Amino acid sequence: MAPLISAAEVAKHNNKGDCWVILNGDVYDLTNFLPEHPAGANIILKYAGKDGSKAFNPIHPSDIIQKLLPAKVRVGKVDPATLKAEAAEKPSEEELQRQKAESSKPPLSQMLNMWDFEAVAKQVLKKEAWAYYSSGADDEITLRENHAAFGRIWLKPRILIDVAKIDMSTTILGQKSSIPLYISATALGRLGHPDGECNLTRAAHTHDIIQMIPTLASCTFDEIRGAARNGQHQFFQLYVNKDRKITEAVVRKAEAAGCKGLFITVDAPQLGRREKDMRMKFDDDSAIQKETGDRVDRNQGAARAISSFIDPALKWDDIKWFKSITKMPIVLKGVQCAEDAVLAYQYGCQGVVLSNHGGRQLDWSRSGIEILPEVMAALDAVGARDKLEVYVDGGVRRATDIFKAVALGAKAVGIGRPLLYAMSSYGQAGVERALDLLKDEMEMTMRLMGTPTIKDITRSHVITDNLNKHISVVEDFSMNSVYDRLSTSANPKL
Amino acid sequence: MAPLISAAEVAKHNNKGDCWVILNGDVYDLTNFLPEHPAGANIILKYAGKDGSKAFNPIHPSDIIQKLLPAKVRVGKVDPATLKAEAAEKPSEEELQRQKAESSKPPLSQMLNMWDFEAVAKQVLKKEAWAYYSSGADDEITLRENHAAFGRIWLKPRILIDVAKIDMSTTILGQKSSIPLYISATALGRLGHPDGECNLTRAAHTHDIIQMIPTLASCTFDEIRGAARNGQHQFFQLYVNKDRKITEAVVRKAEAAGCKGLFITVDAPQLGRREKDMRMKFDDDSAIQKETGDRVDRNQGAARAISSFIDPALKWDDIKWFKSITKMPIVLKGVQCAEDAVLAYQYGCQGVVLSNHGGRQLDWSRSGIEILPEVMAALDAVGARDKLEVYVDGGVRRATDIFKAVALGAKAVGIGRPLLYAMSSYGQAGVERALDLLKDEMEMTMRLMGTPTIKDITRSHVITDNLNKHISVVEDFSMNSVYDRLSTSANPKL
Amino acid sequence: MAPLISAAEVAKHNNKGDCWVILNGDVYDLTNFLPEHPAGANIILKYAGKDGSKAFNPIHPSDIIQKLLPAKVRVGKVDPATLKAEAAEKPSEEELQRQKAESSKPPLSQMLNMWDFEAVAKQVLKKEAWAYYSSGADDEITLRENHAAFGRIWLKPRILIDVAKIDMSTTILGQKSSIPLYISATALGRLGHPDGECNLTRAAHTHDIIQMIPTLASCTFDEIRGAARNGQHQFFQLYVNKDRKITEAVVRKAEAAGCKGLFITVDAPQLGRREKDMRMKFDDDSAIQKETGDRVDRNQGAARAISSFIDPALKWDDIKWFKSITKMPIVLKGVQCAEDAVLAYQYGCQGVVLSNHGGRQLDWSRSGIEILPEVMAALDAVGARDKLEVYVDGGVRRATDIFKAVALGAKAVGIGRPLLYAMSSYGQAGVERALDLLKDEMEMTMRLMGTPTIKDITRSHVITDNLNKHISVVEDFSMNSVYDRLSTSANPKL
Amino acid sequence: MAPLISAAEVAKHNNKGDCWVILNGDVYDLTNFLPEHPAGANIILKYAGKDGSKAFNPIHPSDIIQKLLPAKVRVGKVDPATLKAEAAEKPSEEELQRQKAESSKPPLSQMLNMWDFEAVAKQVLKKEAWAYYSSGADDEITLRENHAAFGRIWLKPRILIDVAKIDMSTTILGQKSSIPLYISATALGRLGHPDGECNLTRAAHTHDIIQMIPTLASCTFDEIRGAARNGQHQFFQLYVNKDRKITEAVVRKAEAAGCKGLFITVDAPQLGRREKDMRMKFDDDSAIQKETGDRVDRNQGAARAISSFIDPALKWDDIKWFKSITKMPIVLKGVQCAEDAVLAYQYGCQGVVLSNHGGRQLDWSRSGIEILPEVMAALDAVGARDKLEVYVDGGVRRATDIFKAVALGAKAVGIGRPLLYAMSSYGQAGVERALDLLKDEMEMTMRLMGTPTIKDITRSHVITDNLNKHISVVEDFSMNSVYDRLSTSANPKL
Repeated sequence: MAPLISAAEVAKHNNKGDCWVILNGDVYDLTNFLPEHPAGANIILKYAGKDGSKAFNPIHPSDIIQKLLPAKVRVGKVDPATLKAEAAEKPSEEELQRQKAESSKPPLSQMLNMWDFEAVAKQVLKKEAWAYYSSGADDEITLRENHAAFGRIWLKPRILIDVAKIDMSTTILGQKSSIPLYISATALGRLGHPDGECNLTRAAHTHDIIQMIPTLASCTFDEIRGAARNGQHQFFQLYVNKDRKITEAVVRKAEAAGCKGLFITVDAPQLGRREKDMRMKFDDDSAIQKETGDRVDRNQGAARAISSFIDPALKWDDIKWFKSITKMPIVLKGVQCAEDAVLAYQYGCQGVVLSNHGGRQLDWSRSGIEILPEVMAALDAVGARDKLEVYVDGGVRRATDIFKAVALGAKAVGIGRPLLYAMSSYGQAGVERALDLLKDEMEMTMRLMGTPTIKDITRSHVITDNLNKHISVVEDFSMNSVYDRLSTSANPKL
Repeated sequence: MAPLISAAEVAKHNNKGDCWVILNGDVYDLTNFLPEHPAGANIILKYAGKDGSKAFNPIHPSDIIQKLLPAKVRVGKVDPATLKAEAAEKPSEEELQRQKAESSKPPLSQMLNMWDFEAVAKQVLKKEAWAYYSSGADDEITLRENHAAFGRIWLKPRILIDVAKIDMSTTILGQKSSIPLYISATALGRLGHPDGECNLTRAAHTHDIIQMIPTLASCTFDEIRGAARNGQHQFFQLYVNKDRKITEAVVRKAEAAGCKGLFITVDAPQLGRREKDMRMKFDDDSAIQKETGDRVDRNQGAARAISSFIDPALKWDDIKWFKSITKMPIVLKGVQCAEDAVLAYQYGCQGVVLSNHGGRQLDWSRSGIEILPEVMAALDAVGARDKLEVYVDGGVRRATDIFKAVALGAKAVGIGRPLLYAMSSYGQAGVERALDLLKDEMEMTMRLMGTPTIKDITRSHVITDNLNKHISVVEDFSMNSVYDRLSTSANPKL
Repeated sequence: MAPLISAAEVAKHNNKGDCWVILNGDVYDLTNFLPEHPAGANIILKYAGKDGSKAFNPIHPSDIIQKLLPAKVRVGKVDPATLKAEAAEKPSEEELQRQKAESSKPPLSQMLNMWDFEAVAKQVLKKEAWAYYSSGADDEITLRENHAAFGRIWLKPRILIDVAKIDMSTTILGQKSSIPLYISATALGRLGHPDGECNLTRAAHTHDIIQMIPTLASCTFDEIRGAARNGQHQFFQLYVNKDRKITEAVVRKAEAAGCKGLFITVDAPQLGRREKDMRMKFDDDSAIQKETGDRVDRNQGAARAISSFIDPALKWDDIKWFKSITKMPIVLKGVQCAEDAVLAYQYGCQGVVLSNHGGRQLDWSRSGIEILPEVMAALDAVGARDKLEVYVDGGVRRATDIFKAVALGAKAVGIGRPLLYAMSSYGQAGVERALDLLKDEMEMTMRLMGTPTIKDITRSHVITDNLNKHISVVEDFSMNSVYDRLSTSANPKL
Repeated sequence: MAPLISAAEVAKHNNKGDCWVILNGDVYDLTNFLPEHPAGANIILKYAGKDGSKAFNPIHPSDIIQKLLPAKVRVGKVDPATLKAEAAEKPSEEELQRQKAESSKPPLSQMLNMWDFEAVAKQVLKKEAWAYYSSGADDEITLRENHAAFGRIWLKPRILIDVAKIDMSTTILGQKSSIPLYISATALGRLGHPDGECNLTRAAHTHDIIQMIPTLASCTFDEIRGAARNGQHQFFQLYVNKDRKITEAVVRKAEAAGCKGLFITVDAPQLGRREKDMRMKFDDDSAIQKETGDRVDRNQGAARAISSFIDPALKWDDIKWFKSITKMPIVLKGVQCAEDAVLAYQYGCQGVVLSNHGGRQLDWSRSGIEILPEVMAALDAVGARDKLEVYVDGGVRRATDIFKAVALGAKAVGIGRPLLYAMSSYGQAGVERALDLLKDEMEMTMRLMGTPTIKDITRSHVITDNLNKHISVVEDFSMNSVYDRLSTSANPKL
């Protein structure tokens, strides 16, 4: 039985050479761990001798210490009687405004589309959560291009086809799905909602769709898998650890727990520069880390804090090893050109996700939807169209987006942020309504396109002549600034 | 003779199990009808035991109860003496502003183009009417693309041709029209003006053009047909009812009444998601319906309230049946690709309207004007160019738009919203002036193009190289936000 | 000798049936002229019995009454002693602001480019003058396209060529010009400056360039021709009068007076709808006319007021007649396609101006610069490149624009509005500085392009791949409105 | 020993005919020099009889008088005791705001990218310095196009390649560089920071990259060369003087001092019209010059003030002469088309910089990056790809820009303004951090692209289909102004 330690005793261990921290009632001696903390020592030192639970919990799964640190770091339990109620910090103007937005947010029933959820989330999320979720790489061109690219595909509806009954069900890696859509893996779900990724698990069950469990979830794998109901299928997303033993253990555990597919992230040998996220640390005491000097600190922001274990040396030959340790179908997440999709097929993968990681990795990489036609053509050329499932994620906001992806050959699309925003704003019910809305839109779209089932949706239903056209406009400010805009009689001065 | 019932008696029947409503002096027992009301029970229950005329009238044709409900629902007439003058509701800030705009709107003579009418309508229409009229599907891309597409067609004027006399008259389905333009069918005209669609009928007579009578008019068919003067031709627009008996009766009535063409709407197996319209119900007590729960209510907004009878199983073979029940020329309204135009010809139709329903059905469907050249080429290929009349609607705001459509092969264009806006702002006189303006512009355009008659207008007068070019711009906010814009000496700081 | 009439006497003739007006000291009986006035009777009736000089002078050349009306309308001279000083009207807020802008305008030396003059003119011009000068047809797309089109041509500079000496002189219709640029004809110069078009004449002399004298000048032909110094060449722009006798007289007079070219305007069988100009009449008592009823008045605005004499029946065969009455070289102003340029050559013209009348006639007509390469190719095809001079007007604002036109085959460009703006802001000195600036830019451009003389400028110096690319962008407001723009550290909230 | 002169004595020589000026303690008689001063006499006369050091120092290298004027102009030293402390001028509102921005600028560690530095520089630079550094030619289209062009190139990342180790080192003209980037020559560095170009020298050493020393530096050549540490390589940028003797002396001195390459600027036979810079003189007493009359003064602004010595007659044959006077490799800076790159090769140059001088010379010239593929193809065609090094400057702001240039064949990119902005905001440390950030981005980019070394970067990694597509959009203000934008529930009125 762990000894009971007074808060006063803990408070003595408050420096770099002797650093105890209280986390959820337990006392840990993290002195030796300081130099190893992926997010740096400073953020731990901020709580040396104190209770760090409030900063720790939204970022870390509850089992992370048990999994990663030796048992002996646990010194004991803090004596609750000795813990003083922390003087509540006076919230900032910004935080007060956020709380007001939170308390006056529109009723769930008023959410009519994915943009609605994003607009609410922008108001109610804590700023570091918003920064982490919403940010993209560099100038966020690819972040926005992901949705914009769908806007260069137009639809060609057909008429006078019986569309009384619409069936949008399909299969993904052989598993049934009520709509060609799965919930993509995203990190740090508890930043947005106390129940974190489990909200998504439960909503996936309600809607009979498949959730991909993230390596970097802030709920534990067991919590997420445990939230699934009997027979509910899930996939597992993997960041490959430099230590292949850990990787192997994680993969075997996922397979043993019944996961139906292994999605290996291949677009993140290093997590991207997301400047909105990086800026957070400067104006927020609660930031995940403090900078340590004048030169560039390459571990800035939440993204980098959680990713130092990822192996940048991962290569094609490693796929063979994965096939030796698991029977789960293997899908490469983050393929960005036709050549690599063909390689994935040749290395024996069952699928690829055309993805740029939600615009969070390399700015100016193209959208998955733009790459899709090239990939399908290349697979056709090697006779592999039906042997490799192709998914697309990034930028999906409307059922017309899903329709376009399916028409171009995708088996399904992955959706991430929109459901995070729904979850952060309204919890599980929010996610369910978001999916309701997408299904409502999908039924409408399939009906108006004259395609009552998924297999009726073909290449001929979409027009992609402009898909590869990217432009940049240099505005003629001289002309535009002296031009006297037209007005109407009702608005003499616009 | 109907019994006289006191208002106090009516007031007792004020709940779901016993629901009487006064409508225009008559008392109806709507208890059994509650579950069948296309717009839901709630909006009726709001007026249970009370007078619902003010909410009922702008949405429903006056004969709708007689047509759709059994005679026995009419319980009697309310005793006028017992009706208390309703305490006038205090109008909202928004409504007061609207009334002020209404009373200070510019004189009709200041309206110089279609935009002027729209700007006035935006200010003087009740907000639910504006939402219903102006809204489009989803993100309203197609709504705006409809006009924008005309902007990708440029004109090639010819010179030194005698244009002293301009003749813009033509025929549509064999009927004379003073300009290649007809008034397209639009629903719920009384939302905008007490005389509703009859304003359009009368203005059509003044201008010697043809009106298409809508199925979902808020005036009755007889009222609209009755407003036509001797010899004034009209077409009939049809939403096909699931109950083909009703459909047949409606078609036969139209033919008997002298309608010269049957325009069957084929782009609306289900009416679209128009979110501006859907949002109305949340912030307005007078909204057409209240939501009934947390999950998506698929009958939201005015559009869906009025459309549940439409048959989503309508198919090509049904065209044969239509040909068996009417001699009117049959035109398919809502064709969106060349293949379906050819099919329409092969199934014996006399015309097609290239239309996406004013951008109100499926977002990202292309504009009619963009499809037109493909359709004409396909008809040429099957030798049908002169055997099928092709019309275009959507986005027409200027006579140059009409000219472009005619040059590309359209027999005429349909105009809807601009005339609704003119009607809502200034009644029949507004519609007449709008048509005056279009004719004035058309005379100018034909003169400056060197095409004195409609048949002089040819494919060589327009340049369509860019018609299929759609782009989306992802702005470089980083660069643009730090750039220091040029200024002029007269405006040192712009 | 004309009788002296008292103002009191004049004041008695103050109605439709008996209408005397004082104009610059003379008294006219305009009763019979009322129905013939191109701008309508009302504007005259406003001054019935009064002195109308202030409204008359900026619009009409001083000799117009003598030229157009019978001598007997002149009743006599007003007795100056009897004229009461008009109670000065209290100027409007808008006019006061204008006067303030006028008095505080930047010194001329601060004008650095054509935009600077336009920005000043916008502030100091009377609003009806600004409306008349700046307006374009319909939605003013072509108005702006004229300059924007130059922006789709890029330059290909060459290096290491001796550019110490730059010679930009050339010839136009055989006459020397110090730069490939002439002053194009524009109407109503006295709206902008009391000396009207004579400012341009004098500045043309200073700069050794050629002015085109407009038919619709507000100075008389004799005044303008008289302002020219010995040996200064001018061209004459002609609107063809329905009465060919008048036309012939005008042409013969121009030739006799020494004009070196006849520019026949062929793009204006009817003057365009310029809505900014048309709107003027509604909010300004000094407007040129009042509306006369509810239906469209087709003579609205200054443009239409002055143009009713133009012959819409002018045709190719008339060119032969022109050649029979004058030896001046004939140039067609307003050619808008290659076919008509070839016809002009075949009918014996010496030149064409590729022009859309400054965007004032037909919206969606292309810019002259866009048409230029097609025209040159067509002339090449018939062996006429060196036999027909081709000019371009519309949108020229920078010397790079002039360079682009010359590189594509134009002999010169015409410039209109920019010089009007310079004239309206600073009179003759303004025009001279504007031309100075263009020459300064031209020297720089030729030096940096590696083309020391005009004949060194060739097709290979410009890149026109995008010249025919016109696009329209339909913005995704949904995405853009929820997107959280990036900020910089220095500007946390942009 | 120089005589000591009292300030009172100096004050007597205060006019055009007798003009003494104190500069850094020395007294000069500039009377004879007045007409020769490149920036005009007025700016000198402003300080006649006074101390002009504050205006002189940021513009001129300290040795300029010794180098250019006869020794006798130095009259003596001013007696410091007699110098009155100048009454401090009351700073303008604008200057006070600048000082406030200066004192409250964000800490250096918050700078995350090049835009951040530019945003700070915009706030803390004196306005004439900002105008000089930031301005471009004419309408600044090319200025912005330079970066925008990179945005028309997209990346094609490859996956599953071992990117644990990234090596971005390369060579430039045979000299090692830690990244394919050199510091390009820019003028007047002391406008931004008292240590001027020496900041760049020191930061170049820290980062093991190469600085190009500018002819128009405001530090002397010896100062800059002296700031280099042992073994630090530098290049020398040359504006060719009309007096070839001076040119020869300068070149020989650079070579003797160890410079490793001679970059001859060929795009500036005359320095460009930069209107932001030109406007400075009008509203600032401290302006470099005052205007001298009404006609255009062709030496306006800082750019022109410093450039009158440049030879506009420089031509290809002169390259032979340069080869005769130096063994340094010769690079032409400012090549703008493939033909001239081939000529450079044929004339024996070792390299070319594809550059439009940062958009400061000829507006509408294309960006270097756009020209690069044409140049590489042309060099391939003559077998010279490996015999001529090609560099690109202009618009580089992100490591993805560097990557794109390298992928298209550039040996390195030049960076100018971004480092000036970093230097002006934070001195040497700012430049070092800017380079840190670019290296951090470059490491990320190379890792995510799957290219661990520079030679792994190939043409196949970039997509350039849209690189030559330039468009200009003419907005449809009519449609857009009446359109009622969509809103979300959370933001009912956007």
